Amino acid sequence: MNKKELSIDDIMCMEQRYRAAFINSLGGFKSVALVGTRSAGGQTNLAIFNSLFHLGANPPLFGFVVRPDSVERHTLANILETGQFTVNHIRPDFYRQAHQTSARYGADASEFEAVGLTELYRNGWQAPFVAESEVQIAGELVRRVDIAENGAIILVCKILFVSVPETCLQPDGYIDLEAAGTVTCSGLDSYHTTNRLARLSYAKPDIDPIEIAVTNGG
Amino acid sequence: MNKKELSIDDIMCMEQRYRAAFINSLGGFKSVALVGTRSAGGQTNLAIFNSLFHLGANPPLFGFVVRPDSVERHTLANILETGQFTVNHIRPDFYRQAHQTSARYGADASEFEAVGLTELYRNGWQAPFVAESEVQIAGELVRRVDIAENGAIILVCKILFVSVPETCLQPDGYIDLEAAGTVTCSGLDSYHTTNRLARLSYAKPDIDPIEIAVTNGG
Repeated sequence: MNKKELSIDDIMCMEQRYRAAFINSLGGFKSVALVGTRSAGGQTNLAIFNSLFHLGANPPLFGFVVRPDSVERHTLANILETGQFTVNHIRPDFYRQAHQTSARYGADASEFEAVGLTELYRNGWQAPFVAESEVQIAGELVRRVDIAENGAIILVCKILFVSVPETCLQPDGYIDLEAAGTVTCSGLDSYHTTNRLARLSYAKPDIDPIEIAVTNGG
Repeated sequence: MNKKELSIDDIMCMEQRYRAAFINSLGGFKSVALVGTRSAGGQTNLAIFNSLFHLGANPPLFGFVVRPDSVERHTLANILETGQFTVNHIRPDFYRQAHQTSARYGADASEFEAVGLTELYRNGWQAPFVAESEVQIAGELVRRVDIAENGAIILVCKILFVSVPETCLQPDGYIDLEAAGTVTCSGLDSYHTTNRLARLSYAKPDIDPIEIAVTNGG
């Protein structure tokens, strides 16, 4: 394919929204999930995030990025206030509602009601899960890391509870997210389903990896 | 689907490799890319990472996670030494070679040669690009953030140069990564192509988002 090459000067000269779409595309396909929170006063909030990343399995940690000056500010305020939130994977049958949570609803509106998704409570956890979601996680804030360069905040979080479809859990702990219907995203606004090429065995020097079978029913 | 529910106690009781596969799956589909580096002494290195995340567009920043005690240690050493690296998207025709870079080759071996991928140099950049890759990025280290909980390191990085297929660049700055053949991954070892559901317009309260057409040729 013919290539377009861009320097940092070209990038900094881009119109702001063009640059946002361009730079957001560069990271490749991304995790996308709905983060559910509830304020101490009981107001629920639901927001879509595409910056979740794995930080470690022992203890189970992940991170995600929040912009304090964006529509994400209610999510941030609730997490800083209560320490609690949920992460809910998105399926093709409600990705439009998930996208719609990024609209600027007021502080007294719940995106659950506004977009037509269902709050689910369990195990005494204060933050609402998304009932329509097949993969649900309860997360607790460990600490925040402020990024001085642009005011972004990385929230370092611990996983406390997980609900996954039984048939998607494989014998070695891998979760077949494709079977669970989890979607991925690219850029700011593009949603995609997936087709597995293969699972590959643990890589060792001078040995070609073999394919690991993925079975229905774990 | 019937659900399996797991508490933090259940997770901490898992066998170590089972837990790694399980927790790595929870984040959803992830960015996966090859990071190319070169030591001050000239030794090249290539490693696969699935933790890239967007941090901001102005300036263009992203982050990724490195484990100092893992096969990723050569990449980390080279980046700390030179400040320079490349990020290269992975396509279906070389995802097996990309996965194979995660084998524990010695410090005096180049994964480029070991797995059969081609070093490409341009613009005086010291770190090698992957010639087979259609989306290539030159990145510079801004600073490191140490995660006390598990010894992981988040590298905060700035984008300095980008090469993308001309036909994939859309009029609004979005890059059609599906057309570029970029793959995504899940868990530790599963690779996937994608099928676009839709691009959705910027969300506003009480208005249903419309689909944005993706065109060939930008």
